[in-house]
This record gives sequence, structure tokens and C-alpha cells, in this order.
Amino acid sequence: MRILIINGPNLNLIGQREPQIYGIQTFEAYLEELKSNSSHEIDYFQSNIEGEIIDELQKSNHDGIIINAGGYTHTSVAIRDCIKGIGKIVIEVHISNITERESFRHTSMLSPVVNGCIFGFGLKGYELALNYFN
Amino acid sequence: MRILIINGPNLNLIGQREPQIYGIQTFEAYLEELKSNSSHEIDYFQSNIEGEIIDELQKSNHDGIIINAGGYTHTSVAIRDCIKGIGKIVIEVHISNITERESFRHTSMLSPVVNGCIFGFGLKGYELALNYFN
Amino acid sequence: MRILIINGPNLNLIGQREPQIYGIQTFEAYLEELKSNSSHEIDYFQSNIEGEIIDELQKSNHDGIIINAGGYTHTSVAIRDCIKGIGKIVIEVHISNITERESFRHTSMLSPVVNGCIFGFGLKGYELALNYFN
Amino acid sequence: MRILIINGPNLNLIGQREPQIYGIQTFEAYLEELKSNSSHEIDYFQSNIEGEIIDELQKSNHDGIIINAGGYTHTSVAIRDCIKGIGKIVIEVHISNITERESFRHTSMLSPVVNGCIFGFGLKGYELALNYFN
Amino acid sequence: MRILIINGPNLNLIGQREPQIYGIQTFEAYLEELKSNSSHEIDYFQSNIEGEIIDELQKSNHDGIIINAGGYTHTSVAIRDCIKGIGKIVIEVHISNITERESFRHTSMLSPVVNGCIFGFGLKGYELALNYFN
Amino acid sequence: MRILIINGPNLNLIGQREPQIYGIQTFEAYLEELKSNSSHEIDYFQSNIEGEIIDELQKSNHDGIIINAGGYTHTSVAIRDCIKGIGKIVIEVHISNITERESFRHTSMLSPVVNGCIFGFGLKGYELALNYFN
Amino acid sequence: MRILIINGPNLNLIGQREPQIYGIQTFEAYLEELKSNSSHEIDYFQSNIEGEIIDELQKSNHDGIIINAGGYTHTSVAIRDCIKGIGKIVIEVHISNITERESFRHTSMLSPVVNGCIFGFGLKGYELALNYFN
Amino acid sequence: MRILIINGPNLNLIGQREPQIYGIQTFEAYLEELKSNSSHEIDYFQSNIEGEIIDELQKSNHDGIIINAGGYTHTSVAIRDCIKGIGKIVIEVHISNITERESFRHTSMLSPVVNGCIFGFGLKGYELALNYFN
Amino acid sequence: MRILIINGPNLNLIGQREPQIYGIQTFEAYLEELKSNSSHEIDYFQSNIEGEIIDELQKSNHDGIIINAGGYTHTSVAIRDCIKGIGKIVIEVHISNITERESFRHTSMLSPVVNGCIFGFGLKGYELALNYFN
Amino acid sequence: MRILIINGPNLNLIGQREPQIYGIQTFEAYLEELKSNSSHEIDYFQSNIEGEIIDELQKSNHDGIIINAGGYTHTSVAIRDCIKGIGKIVIEVHISNITERESFRHTSMLSPVVNGCIFGFGLKGYELALNYFN
Amino acid sequence: MRILIINGPNLNLIGQREPQIYGIQTFEAYLEELKSNSSHEIDYFQSNIEGEIIDELQKSNHDGIIINAGGYTHTSVAIRDCIKGIGKIVIEVHISNITERESFRHTSMLSPVVNGCIFGFGLKGYELALNYFN
Amino acid sequence: MRILIINGPNLNLIGQREPQIYGIQTFEAYLEELKSNSSHEIDYFQSNIEGEIIDELQKSNHDGIIINAGGYTHTSVAIRDCIKGIGKIVIEVHISNITERESFRHTSMLSPVVNGCIFGFGLKGYELALNYFN
Repeated sequence: MRILIINGPNLNLIGQREPQIYGIQTFEAYLEELKSNSSHEIDYFQSNIEGEIIDELQKSNHDGIIINAGGYTHTSVAIRDCIKGIGKIVIEVHISNITERESFRHTSMLSPVVNGCIFGFGLKGYELALNYFN
Repeated sequence: MRILIINGPNLNLIGQREPQIYGIQTFEAYLEELKSNSSHEIDYFQSNIEGEIIDELQKSNHDGIIINAGGYTHTSVAIRDCIKGIGKIVIEVHISNITERESFRHTSMLSPVVNGCIFGFGLKGYELALNYFN
Repeated sequence: MRILIINGPNLNLIGQREPQIYGIQTFEAYLEELKSNSSHEIDYFQSNIEGEIIDELQKSNHDGIIINAGGYTHTSVAIRDCIKGIGKIVIEVHISNITERESFRHTSMLSPVVNGCIFGFGLKGYELALNYFN
Repeated sequence: MRILIINGPNLNLIGQREPQIYGIQTFEAYLEELKSNSSHEIDYFQSNIEGEIIDELQKSNHDGIIINAGGYTHTSVAIRDCIKGIGKIVIEVHISNITERESFRHTSMLSPVVNGCIFGFGLKGYELALNYFN
Repeated sequence: MRILIINGPNLNLIGQREPQIYGIQTFEAYLEELKSNSSHEIDYFQSNIEGEIIDELQKSNHDGIIINAGGYTHTSVAIRDCIKGIGKIVIEVHISNITERESFRHTSMLSPVVNGCIFGFGLKGYELALNYFN
Repeated sequence: MRILIINGPNLNLIGQREPQIYGIQTFEAYLEELKSNSSHEIDYFQSNIEGEIIDELQKSNHDGIIINAGGYTHTSVAIRDCIKGIGKIVIEVHISNITERESFRHTSMLSPVVNGCIFGFGLKGYELALNYFN
Repeated sequence: MRILIINGPNLNLIGQREPQIYGIQTFEAYLEELKSNSSHEIDYFQSNIEGEIIDELQKSNHDGIIINAGGYTHTSVAIRDCIKGIGKIVIEVHISNITERESFRHTSMLSPVVNGCIFGFGLKGYELALNYFN
Repeated sequence: MRILIINGPNLNLIGQREPQIYGIQTFEAYLEELKSNSSHEIDYFQSNIEGEIIDELQKSNHDGIIINAGGYTHTSVAIRDCIKGIGKIVIEVHISNITERESFRHTSMLSPVVNGCIFGFGLKGYELALNYFN
Repeated sequence: MRILIINGPNLNLIGQREPQIYGIQTFEAYLEELKSNSSHEIDYFQSNIEGEIIDELQKSNHDGIIINAGGYTHTSVAIRDCIKGIGKIVIEVHISNITERESFRHTSMLSPVVNGCIFGFGLKGYELALNYFN
Repeated sequence: MRILIINGPNLNLIGQREPQIYGIQTFEAYLEELKSNSSHEIDYFQSNIEGEIIDELQKSNHDGIIINAGGYTHTSVAIRDCIKGIGKIVIEVHISNITERESFRHTSMLSPVVNGCIFGFGLKGYELALNYFN
Repeated sequence: MRILIINGPNLNLIGQREPQIYGIQTFEAYLEELKSNSSHEIDYFQSNIEGEIIDELQKSNHDGIIINAGGYTHTSVAIRDCIKGIGKIVIEVHISNITERESFRHTSMLSPVVNGCIFGFGLKGYELALNYFN
Repeated sequence: MRILIINGPNLNLIGQREPQIYGIQTFEAYLEELKSNSSHEIDYFQSNIEGEIIDELQKSNHDGIIINAGGYTHTSVAIRDCIKGIGKIVIEVHISNITERESFRHTSMLSPVVNGCIFGFGLKGYELALNYFN
């Protein structure tokens, strides 16, 4: 299967930013591991711009999408509308346990329209999400 | 008169996305009808990027603007500030009846700064908005 | 088509009351203009009594109804139930932009059960509503 | 005993309006059944006007009152004051299960001042209320 | 001066209803005392119907109005709009201390648009209101 | 018909506890009266343990269930899920008028999933609930 | 009768501060008028210190107290406790209509424990309060 | 590794209860599949009683725990305290997407103290949770 | 005097669980100290099951009860009803300062119905509670 | 040890004010009992002025402080800051059970920064607080 | 220019109290530095008493005022009224970043009526405020 | 030192838009003044696109950043995460006094993660922010 992973704002900083929360491995390094251990074909897209994430979701012709919308998770009606509109299997991942952080992170605008949600497992959450497609 | 219609995120999916809410006609097809039935000159802009909508609003030299900001309707202080700042006649349109959907859609950040608001009439709402300029 | 316009409490004061909000034209004068410019047959009813508005809605055998429930807009479960119960096409109009006034005016009990909503256009809002039936 | 049944706004539409909620029997037909099966003397009053319901409550010299205030249930301080003021046995009935509908129907202004409350049983709720007086 | 006193729903029960809150004197008896002790000409109107109170307010050509809207005090946008619309001197009176009763009585929809407010003094509050016009 | 009555925590104290609210008759004495006056076969279960109430609901093969979940009424998602899951006719009874007591008693987690609700009639409420099955 | 008037913080600025709200007459000048027109003996106390107002209330041996606690009105549990504790007739006055100003001024901590409340009449409110003791 | 799966109230009804939400496979059948496909040793415990779940958590000497606390998820401070107190790796699973159901299901008392959370994947969520221990 | 100490869920973990909050002494060890230093006869009961705590409260024939309901403190209407129903002297103790922890711990359902409350003193709080009976 | 007892506003009225809540013994009389029964050296300070309580707290060189801040308990950020700033052992006492009174008394600004809290025991609460220092 | 610096409660403890928040330099030492580096004439006033701060503000004849009202910042309507009443240029300073501390510190009653606000810069914030007058 | 000034959406309209709030000087003109009066090297970036502001923050290698995020201030979790992630000295500036405008402007998502905040001083606020780096 062909899977698209979309990372939202500041997730390009992983490995540098707040390592006590996000760890010290870069996402690129992790992605290589993920690809080599998985039987799926994996595409990757990262952007800090909310509308570009929407553009990418609309263009996708993958069998499944794994999305970590970063800070847009908690506010973006537009990405939510897009996920609902494109009618694909979408899984939401968060690296940290968003329910133990600031209260504005407890609610995800995306969760009610995705197929499943995984959070708190560190980078390993992406792997668990991929397992769903096995 | 010269009128600018601005559509926000995911409104390029109309005709495909959630037809039970938005119908099956594409906006482009509808726009052609609208143009041929109206005595006004109509320009059209669509973007999924919040800031590009602001850029377009700032550049506009039209006699009136009809805006459907899609998902940004409910959260965008920035588009609101822009509408207030440019000092033009702006009409807000929504295709669906936003007050009968999820509670986060009941409030529009834009409504308090526009000249009038029209929602629930399907695509016909754009035509009613155009009528205001007759 | 035969259209019924219903105006709620204090809308008989239009032209006298708070002209900076509602303008200086009386509704009766405006209604004459409306009738002479429209191909529809228009009936008009105004009452300050909530229950009489319900009585009128129940008796109506028109093709469409345009309602401005005035102060009852924001509190009347009973008018809402009536609109839902009679199963007719109903359009809600407000002369002022209710979202830029006191917070208790931001919510309409009627909007979720009407076919469409138009507000902020002054008396011209009734004309736009009539256009819907064209 | 002499019992007064008071029905509020739109309950005269029962049997026509929203049958999936209220059923298809008219209240008048149901009332005849009720009268013929009960040993109590039953009077009936219906009005869409809040103040007329208050007038009727004030005039009542019955042994007990069964009230379904319809849409005024959720907002009427005035009917509540009246029930408290007249010092009679009053039972509140709702045909539908108000707690599974819109959130504004979950609270009754009348419940805290009545002797008992019955809802969700369809028209049969009036019969259960009558049983209280056996 | 000519003064109109308007009493809302259930205030015709004064002297009978909840005497621990409202006392045992009827309003009519009190009104006679008030008239005989005052140099003003006093008219009196009572209704249980919200819209009739609005009708009366609209018709008034008095120099001042004293209103106790009873249960409509806390919910009536329509009476509020009327008071604001007619542009007269209006004083709000409540017999009881509304702030020490149920929480829904703590807010008056009318207070922000009247010239002054008096509550908690029993029937004597009407006399204090009359004094304002001396 | 075979009917199961389930009483939740502290309802075994009835007749002793807070007689000004719950009266002085024990539930056992009342139950005998109820049985002898009813044509239905009545089983009775009481427990102070939330999960045992769920166990009993799951095991029930009765034609109808009357439940007064006591203090669990206001908090128990688990009993609610059980009622919804077993797909039986369930009627909710409360002895006191829960809407005139502390605010945390105003909301029942169970009401939205039961067939009907009866409260405020004292022990007689169980009899009214039984009547529903006549 | 001997009456004590207590004014709270910033009321010593009356006549200077925000004249569009409080007018241009100083309280001292007004007090002289009040004394000369009244048959009561009037004492006056003003302080900007919350605790000194409490001290004065506790020491008072007057027949009645008129208090305008200024900014402490909306927050002072301590003055409220004192009024309740001393068991005297206390009337609350506000010069402006506190319900049409900022929302934090809409609630008075003192109102529920005073005998009556008068606001919105300008300085004349003190005179109306004095009339209560006639 | 030795893993304990704990299921809370009503999860013994899976396969029978609300199949549109929970599917038609019983948990026992699913568990057999899970065991035969996994290299981990899996123990299973189900109870409808909150305190028995706590007892089981306290007794556990497993390498990891997977918990679906059912209806207790949203209210149980006691299970939360227990998870925090025992200091083990705990993963929370929900079969349905709890964020698209009733609002009281949107918040989990347990999520902030578990190591990771998985929901919306149907029974497959337990398998994804097991994968975490690979 | 005969005193019953009741500890709720997870308090059997004291001395092991979260020592930075609860200290390192087990409750059993502390209880021995307490017994040997007190002139009262002390019984002790601990359970993780809400309903068993209610059973124990109902059975108690002691002169006073000291209760620390652990996690049930913040949610249990049922234990609250029981305390109110049995009409005994009950003192509530918490080891930690519940007001400086998570917001859901700030409110105790039990406090309004107990005779007194002691929290924040560590295990010494039980001793202070015992002192009340001296 | 040297202990300072600080009482806030209106606690000098104890024995006179609201005896059904606070009893009929004056604090001075109680203090004498307390001193003669305790091995600690006890100083006492009372003021109705918030800032003087802060001054006294800042000057204190005692081994422990027992504070009942009266009405300032619920609003005073300033006293809270002071207690946190001086770094002493401080115990908060309330004579009444503040959680069963008005809702604004349910929250103490001071509790989160004191070492322990005792309320509802009447004047005996001060003795229990003293016991903490034994 | 002549500038008055007003510090509210507990700011006399700076250099001693919570140094991780406020640093270790006393305000007096800092003030000397500030005076010697500035071309303005600087007066200084500190009090723990809310009303004395009001007295000082009313007496001030300076060209500008810099105020840090400490704990009164978040609750004092009275100081707010005073600042608005005296009509002077007032700048609000906070040493710490009040938005990252407890939620009750996030709102300042004073900010809406001052000319500008500076917080989070440590003691240097007073210097930045002084710069405004250059 | 090298300082980066970032301005968010619509701040390119300054000098044109709402001059009663923002003044009539363009930011470009002001920037020239600022540069010529400061010893720091100043770079400037403006964008209406949220994600481009994040891109710029991530790329910055300046010694300090001054940011006015305009309308994104109140909603952007993504910019907040970025500021926290890059670990630089960041100062937040607002031209107007955001606390005296609409309530949605009272809260800044950025303030809790910046080093200091300055608002209400007009364009001069940028100068004060620069002073911090002296």
C-alpha cells in the first residue's frame, strides 16, 4: 500500500526542539528506519503553512494518510473540513501525550473526523499507525 | 460594478465533497451561470491559504467583495482585521446553514465586520449577495 | 407565488425608533415599494404578541414565509417549534447586523430551523429574501 | 376530582407536526379516550399565548392541574411564578423525552415548582399523570 | 405630571400569592393610597401578556413610566427593545430583593435601558419611584 | 408481565434517612403494597455497588425494568452504557423532585437513554411507572 | 431618625472625575442640600480603605445606613459580612446605572444582604434612599 | 513479555451491544486471535465494578497493561490514582472514536497518566497496543 | 469513644505510591502509632469499592467516623448521600493539600455534609481529626 | 513554640454576629481558654484592613501562624502572595464549614499556599490547628 | 519630568521573596540605580493597603505614574476607578511574566485603563517604562 | 546586536488602516527612524501568512527577536510552539492596548512563551522593546 505521512508546523525541528518532550532523533533519520522496516511505500510531506497541508491532502492519491498537524491540530477547521471532504483513511498521530500538557492541547479539531488516533508513544506512534494498514 | 468573489479553503472541492451538504454542482460551473445572468463584472479568487486571502483582500480595487472564508470563518482574527482595515463593502456568504451544524460553526469571526450576511441558501446565496449591488 | 412577511415586536416602530440602527423609512412605506417591484403576491402581518405570531404561522397557506421575529428571535422556543412543525419554506431576516450588537442578540433560536438567513442589509434584506423565491 | 389539562404552544399541531417525535394521533382524539377511561372530570385548555396560560392557571378552581407548557417550558419565569403563586397541585408532562433532544430542552423552568414530572411516554404520559390523582 | 404604572404577570395576585415575599396588601389597595398621597396623576395597567405590555408602552403619552415587568423582567428582549425605542423616562421597580432569590432573577434584561432601578423595598418601592418625578 | 425494580445506593435506608425528603415508609413495606395491588410479577434488587447494578441489568430477562439509581444517577456513564446496550424497556424513577435540590442532581446521565422518566411523586412514582406496562 | 451615609473609594472625586457619568456637583455640596431638605439627622463618612468602611459600619449606632461602596461593591465579601453581621437597616445606592457599564459592575456583592437597592438616578438616588426612612 | 488486558464495564457485551459502534465479534473470540498471533503472554480481566479493576491493577506483576476502562474512563479519579500509583507501563485503548460521540466521552480521566493512547480502530486497537511492546 | 476510620481507594498503597506526595510510612504502621497514643477505641476499614464504603458507613455504630474517600471524594454523590443519611458525626481528612493539585481535586462532594474538614497535614491529619473527639 | 493567630475582618464580632453560624462565645474569651490549655506561647492580631494583615504577616518572627482571613479568604491575592513570600508554616482555619455556604465561599485563595487547612469545627478549629505544632 | 513609581503589596519583600521569580536585588537598591541613570525626577511610594494606593494616586501631581499594584492588580475595581478618574498618564509594570503563572494572574483589572503595559522583564521593566517619558 | 522585527498580518496596512487605533505613520517610515536612532542592527520581516512567520523564526540567527503577530497573536499554537522551540530571546509588542478592545484580543497565545511583553504605547512600543537589548 502507498501511505502518505504529513507533518505540520515545527515538526521539522524534531531532534532539536524541546528534547525532553520530543526526543533527540530527527524525523528524517526516523523516517529512514520506518521505510526500511515497512512493506508499505511511504511518502512524506512537511509544511509550516496550514493551507499547503490542505493542498497536499487534496492532491493525495494514497491508500492511507498519517497526519500529525502539530499546532494546527487544535485550531484548524480548514484541515478538518479537508479530511472530511477527501474521504480517505486518515490516522492522527501525536508524539507527546497531548492530554498531559497545556489545556489548549487537550482538544483536537481533527480527531472527530479521522479513522483512529494514536498519541503519547513518541516517534513509535508513526510505526503503530503504519501497522494499522498491515 | 466590479465585484470580487473570494472562496476560502476546500471550496474548490464543491461538487465533490459532502454533496448532502454542498450539492453536486462545481463552483466553476455555478460561476459561469452567475456571470452570464448578472450585469456586474465578476472576478473570482480561491485559496486554501489564510494569508493569501488577506493578500487578495488588500490588493482588491473592486466596488464590492463577496467572501466565503470556509473553515477560516470561525477562527481568523487576521481576515477579520483585514476586512475592517480595507474599508470596502464586504458581504459574507455560507452555502450551508452554519447554525444547524457543529457548535464551532455557529460563530463567525467575520460577521461583525461585514456589511451583511447570507447563509443557508446553497450556491444561490452568492446570487442573493450579488443582488445587493443592484 | 404567495409570500407572507411576518414582523415581530416593535418592528411597527421602524422609521421612528433608533433610526441610527433601523433607518427612517416606515415599514409600511417600504412594503409598498416592495410590492410594486415584485412579481410575488405579498401578505403582511405584524404583532407584538409571541403567541399571535405562532397562530399566524399555523394558519398560513402561503408558498413561503419571511420572518423577522424581532426580540423574540433570541428566546422563543415556541416560534422555533412552530416553524419546524408547519413544514414550510421560511426565511429569517434581520434589518441590523445582529452579530455586532449586544451578545444576547448573537444567537437566534430560529436560524437552525429556517431555510436561510439574511441580516445586516437594512430593509433591503426583505427584498433579497424575496429574490430567493424568484 | 376535577382536573384541568393545559397544553401550551404548538401542541394543537399534535398528530400533524413531527410525527416521528409526537406520533400521529391528534390530542383531541386522545382526550376523548382519556375522558372515557377516567373517573375524573377533565377540562382542557390550549393556547399559543404565554399570558393566556397564566390567566387560565389563575382562574382555575380545579383539584389538580396537568400542564405541558410546550416551548414555554424552558424559558417562562412568568408561568413558573404563577404555578408557585396559585398553590395548587400541578403535574408537568412532556410527550417526548426532553433530555435526549437539543440541550436547551434539558432544563424546565417549571419542574422545580411542580409536584411531579413525567416525560418520554408519548401521549400516555397524560394518563400516568391522571393516575396520580386516583 | 402624568405617570403610568405598568405591572407584569402575576402582580395581580399580590396580597394573595407568597405573602412572605410580597406582603398581604393588594396592589389595588396600595394604589389608592399612592394616588391620594401623590401630586401626580397616576394611570395603571396590568397584563399577564408580554405583547400587551409592549402595546401599552408604545401607546403611552405619559411624562414618565414605572414598570415592574414581573417574570418577563429576566427574559424579555422585546420589552427591552420597546423601552429603548419609545424614548421615555422609565423606572424599573421590584417589590422583592431580586438579588437574594434564585440566580435567574439576578439579571434584568430591562435595567440597562431604564433611567433608574429600585428593588427590595416592598410596595414602598413604587412610592420611591414616584418621588423621582417630584 | 414480569417487571424488575432496581434501587441504587442508600435506597435501602428509605424510611430512616431524611424523612422530610423520602418519607417514613420503608421500601420493603411499600413493595408489598405494590405487589398486592398490581397484576404484574415484580422482582426487586438493591445494591450500593455500581457494578452490581450493571451485572443485574445485564442478567435481566424481564419485560420491563424500573430503575432508581440513587446517587449513581448523576455520574454513571457505565450504567447508562448498560441500559443502552441491553435494549430493554427501562423507566427511570426518582422519589424526590430532583430539580428543586442541589444543582448536581438536576442532570441524570440515564434519562437520555431510558423510555420515560417520572420524578417528584414520592414512592407513588414506582406505581405510576408500573402503570406504564398496563 | 439618625442616618449614616457611607461613601467608598473615589467617591470623594465626584464633581471632578468622569463628569459624563457622575455629574459636576461635588458630594459635599450635594450633602448640604440633602441635609437642609431632610428632617433626618445625617452623618457622613468617606474612605478609600475597605477595612475603614468596615470599622465605621461596626461602630455605627444610627437608625439606618445608606452605603455606596464604590469599587468595593463588586468584590468585597468583607463588607458584605459586616452588613449582615451588624443587623441594621442598610440601603445600597449607586449614582450610575451599573447594569449598563462594564460586566464586572453588574454584580454587587452587597445587594443580597441589604434592605433595598437604588441605582441610576445620579446623586438624587441618595435622596430617594432617605425617603425610605420617612 | 507478560501483558495484562483489562476491560471495564459492559465490554463483556461486545458483539451483542450496539454493533454499529462495537462490531459483531465477541471479545473472547477476538482475544483468541490476538493470543495466537502474538509472541507475548496475555492475561485478561474484565469487571463491571470500578474497585475490582483497581484491585486487579494493584495486584498486577505484568510487564505492561492495556486498559479499556469503558464508562469509568470519563469519571474515575480512583482508577487514575491507581495507574499513577503502581508505576507500570499502561496503554489506554478505546474501540470507538470517543471524540465523535457524546461530549462527556471526549475527556478521559486516564489519558494524562498513561504512556500512550489508541482509539477509533475497533478491536484492532488492542493489537496496535500490543505492538508497542514488540 | 469508639471511632471508625475509613480509607478509600488506593490508600492501601500509602508508603509505596507517590512518596513525594504521601510519604513513606504505611498506613498500617501509622495506625498502630495512632492507636497507642489515643484514648479512643479505633476501628479501621479500607476498600477500593465505592459501594463497600457505603455498606460500611451504613453498618457503623461508632461515636464518630473519620473518612478519607480517596479518589471517590470528588465524584461520589452516593457516599455523600450515605453520610447525610446516617446522621453521624463524620470528619473528612485528606493527606495532601488537595487545593494545590489538579483542579478536579479542588472540590469535594463530601465536604458540604461532614462536620469538619482537615487537609494538607500528611498522616498527622488523622490525629488532628481524632483530637476533635477529645 | 511561639504561635501567632491572625483573624481577619468581622471576626471581632464573633459572639455577637450570626450566632447560628459562629456561636455565642467571643473570640477573646475563647482565646483565654486556648492559652491556658496550651503549652505554646500565643500572640493574637485582628484587623479589618487587608493590608494591615499583610504588614503583620511580614513582621512575624513566630514559629507558626494560624490565620482565618475572614472575607478576604476568597479574594485576596495579596495575602496569598504574602504567605508564600514569608516562607513560614501557616495553617488556615475557618469556623464554619465554608463549603456548605454561598458558592463564593467555596474557594479559598489562601489554601493552595498554606501547610494545612481546617474548617467546620467551630472555634475548636483553632485548637486543632495548635495541636499541629505539638 | 516628575515621575511617581507606586508599588503595591509585598513588593517591599523583593530581593527576599521567591527569588526564582523576582530576583535577589532589593527594590530600594534598584531604585537608586534607576534614579542615577535617569534624567527624570523620581518619587517612590509603597504600601500594602489598597486604599492608601488610591489616596496616593489621588494626591499625585506628577507628569506620569508607573504602577505595579502587586496582588491588587487582578481584583481592584477601586484602583482602576481611581486611575480612570485622575486622568493622568499611567504605565503598568509587572516584574514577572504574569501570563505564564496561575490563571488568576492572567487578567489585570488595571490594564484596560492605563496607557501602556510592560511585563516579564524583571526589574528592568521599570526602566523601560521610564523610557516612555523620554 | 542583531535584532529581527517580525510583523504579522495587516501590519503592512499601518498608517492607512484604522488610524484612530494605529496612527497615521507607516511602519516603513517608523522603521527608518528606529534604525537611525538605534545602535543595533535591525532586520525586518512582514507576512500575512502564518507559516511564513514560522519559517522566518526558524531561520533567524539574530541575537533577539521582536514580534507583533497581529491577528495570529490570539490563535496561533503553531507560532507559540516555534518560539518555544527555537530557544531565542523574543519580545512581544502590540501597538494598541489589546486589553481595552474586543474580548478575543485579551489573550495572547504567545505571551506565556516570550521573555517580555509591551503593549499600548503605539509604535513607540518597538523602541521600548529595542531598549531591552541595550
